[in-house]
Amino acid sequence: MNVAELAAIAKNASIKLAAVDTKTKNTALAEIAEALKENSAQIIAVNKEDLTKAQADNLAAPLLKRLKFDEQKIADCVAGIDSLIKLGDPVGNTLDAIELDEGLELYKVSCPIGVIGVVFESRPDALVQISTLCLKSGNAVLLKGGSEAAKTNKILADLITEATTKVGIPQGWLGLLETREDVAALLSLDEYIDLIIPRGSNEFVWHIMNNTNIPVLGHAEGICHVYVDGDADIDMAVRIIVDSKCQYVAVCNAVETLLVDSKIAKKFLPKLKTALEERNVELRGCEKTRKIIKVKAATERDWRAEYLDYILSIKVVDGLDEAIEHINKYGSRHTDAIVTNNKAKAAKFTDLVDSANVFVNCSTRFSDGFRYGLGAEVGISTNKIHARGPVGLEGLLIYKWKLYGSGQIVDDYSKGFKHFSHRKLNKDCEI
Amino acid sequence: MNVAELAAIAKNASIKLAAVDTKTKNTALAEIAEALKENSAQIIAVNKEDLTKAQADNLAAPLLKRLKFDEQKIADCVAGIDSLIKLGDPVGNTLDAIELDEGLELYKVSCPIGVIGVVFESRPDALVQISTLCLKSGNAVLLKGGSEAAKTNKILADLITEATTKVGIPQGWLGLLETREDVAALLSLDEYIDLIIPRGSNEFVWHIMNNTNIPVLGHAEGICHVYVDGDADIDMAVRIIVDSKCQYVAVCNAVETLLVDSKIAKKFLPKLKTALEERNVELRGCEKTRKIIKVKAATERDWRAEYLDYILSIKVVDGLDEAIEHINKYGSRHTDAIVTNNKAKAAKFTDLVDSANVFVNCSTRFSDGFRYGLGAEVGISTNKIHARGPVGLEGLLIYKWKLYGSGQIVDDYSKGFKHFSHRKLNKDCEI
Repeated sequence: MNVAELAAIAKNASIKLAAVDTKTKNTALAEIAEALKENSAQIIAVNKEDLTKAQADNLAAPLLKRLKFDEQKIADCVAGIDSLIKLGDPVGNTLDAIELDEGLELYKVSCPIGVIGVVFESRPDALVQISTLCLKSGNAVLLKGGSEAAKTNKILADLITEATTKVGIPQGWLGLLETREDVAALLSLDEYIDLIIPRGSNEFVWHIMNNTNIPVLGHAEGICHVYVDGDADIDMAVRIIVDSKCQYVAVCNAVETLLVDSKIAKKFLPKLKTALEERNVELRGCEKTRKIIKVKAATERDWRAEYLDYILSIKVVDGLDEAIEHINKYGSRHTDAIVTNNKAKAAKFTDLVDSANVFVNCSTRFSDGFRYGLGAEVGISTNKIHARGPVGLEGLLIYKWKLYGSGQIVDDYSKGFKHFSHRKLNKDCEI
Repeated sequence: MNVAELAAIAKNASIKLAAVDTKTKNTALAEIAEALKENSAQIIAVNKEDLTKAQADNLAAPLLKRLKFDEQKIADCVAGIDSLIKLGDPVGNTLDAIELDEGLELYKVSCPIGVIGVVFESRPDALVQISTLCLKSGNAVLLKGGSEAAKTNKILADLITEATTKVGIPQGWLGLLETREDVAALLSLDEYIDLIIPRGSNEFVWHIMNNTNIPVLGHAEGICHVYVDGDADIDMAVRIIVDSKCQYVAVCNAVETLLVDSKIAKKFLPKLKTALEERNVELRGCEKTRKIIKVKAATERDWRAEYLDYILSIKVVDGLDEAIEHINKYGSRHTDAIVTNNKAKAAKFTDLVDSANVFVNCSTRFSDGFRYGLGAEVGISTNKIHARGPVGLEGLLIYKWKLYGSGQIVDDYSKGFKHFSHRKLNKDCEI
């Protein structure tokens, strides 16, 4: 089958899947967990074939690590599925109920989006995670993983398909794409696909965003800032920056640029330099910074750089307003933090910095669905509509309006024979 | 100024506008109402210039009617602004509050989207309505109206700008675009513009949707259906279809295709024909329909037609499943209704029809923000993300995550020195 055919079938399946009851979906999730456990030896053997080929192709070490799918990763996937089963069904919740008139009741009810297209790089666990999230939220899914993981992805998709369709999940709810041309086709199928979630490098996500009319949920870059205000606790600021930079450098919520209030720069920067150089962080500073500490010069390019490495650029600014302006100009609207003991400045920072996550006196590394307590994480979005920041299952949902009448027509209201009550109802949609 | 400059300024203004307090925004709205009243003679005089030119250019009568901006329309605008002032501020509401750990509190807080681009056809009242909705929700706005209303739009935009900036709304929050080339430029400015709302004909909306990477909120077509089930009350079904078709034919929520259960077709169709022919509705039927009543033949094209006219296509189907399939195949995901006394069939219909509005035993004409009691209406969306169906002010909002700590770093949680509590908080964000 070609991608358009897979997508058309997924669309049909999505309609039916939207109405599948909670028990069936949870049974299917349990069957997936069971299938992963029962077939773990075979999955690992197939993954080894992918790994052998990837090594022969000289795949970089971090990619090889992500490609590996072993007992531990299978156990993690199973644990993830178990906690997903325990979550409430996000579909069919009454979000609003309004009596328009006697016997004419309006309900806003949560429902799946439809068909989700997911394009991800090497990690095969992403396939399990995303497809189970889609199942729980009643969405059909088309998946395209990295070609280096092709065999692993194939066996996982086959196991998931078999485990779910045998307990009543509609045929075709999960489709696996296999070639690069398939992705180009996927991006053009706005007739069938309602949302694309890309997971991978910046360039990869930019490519997806620039080549489709389908809405994309995600983020390309994380150019995160910490602003150390004149009213900051200096030791706290050092701790927060060390954590924001070094706790895990290769991630989107690591800090890339430090902004320092000129009032505090002379006291603060030498302490910071000591702390970061102990951890082998390369510092690049603006002119004002370099008058205080001896570091490499930062250029305009540094303010726009997502290093994902042990590098930090530093700029001395004249107070909060300049800091906010810099962040809104150069940032990527992901996560930005202020360190200050001044509540008014903290409030101004969180109000005026136009980012998904705005933090006061804590590490940028907290912006994450697990740390936020959202349960399952779909991704982190820097979009300005639908869902922003770490996105849980609710990012895979929308709503529909259900109106139950008893023969009402608009003409009666238009002519003034009848009148709208618009009374809030305190009840759930019953049908 | 060119459009990119206007957009950059609007972006800057949007940052400040996001933090403007409720009182200032309401004062600015009151000033707009006052300015409209005070300058009504001048507005009407300028509008007459547009009308004179439009008549000379042989603009169609319905367009002339929409272009006219008289005492009544000004009074309607003022009444709309008065009710907008009375609505609560949608910005700054705490949507969720979670204690991550002691002294580390996470708040999900509603905020404006940023810069909204609005492209609308002749009605100048749309300019007033949309700009005041944007102001209340803290969004900057770039507006492009129809060229036939250029002078009216200019005076309205000038009055609104003056009335609002003099009481503290940031300069440049409202930008007026004037040429067709401006629209092309607007559609390309995804750096500055966060959402586009098009208001106009199908072709117009399709053009916008197909020519921008910016998210679009709206709908192109309304191909709405009524399905008369075998268990329907026949008289009720006739009333509902007459209203859905004839109450106002030129609108997106009027019915275009009728589906009739073959079980009831022989009893029902002759009655319907009498009722609709009294109202001069042209009927076009499938073969089965034409064996029961004498009507023109419908072709495949009819199932995809949005007539916006006194025409109704009719198809006899073999029960609910075929009706649902037809609607999901040919519909535009706008509004579809079932007439039935069978609750199980009503539930199946509302679950499986993939439309923004799914109705039971009432007219399709109810799908409208005013009738839903949403207050102000931004538009009707057939999108599958962000907002669906009639959209009130909440369609102009997103949220940001504010995290207030006291020096917390991720490393402490990662190493197990500290643990997340993830306790729901029952309080609003204080800063």
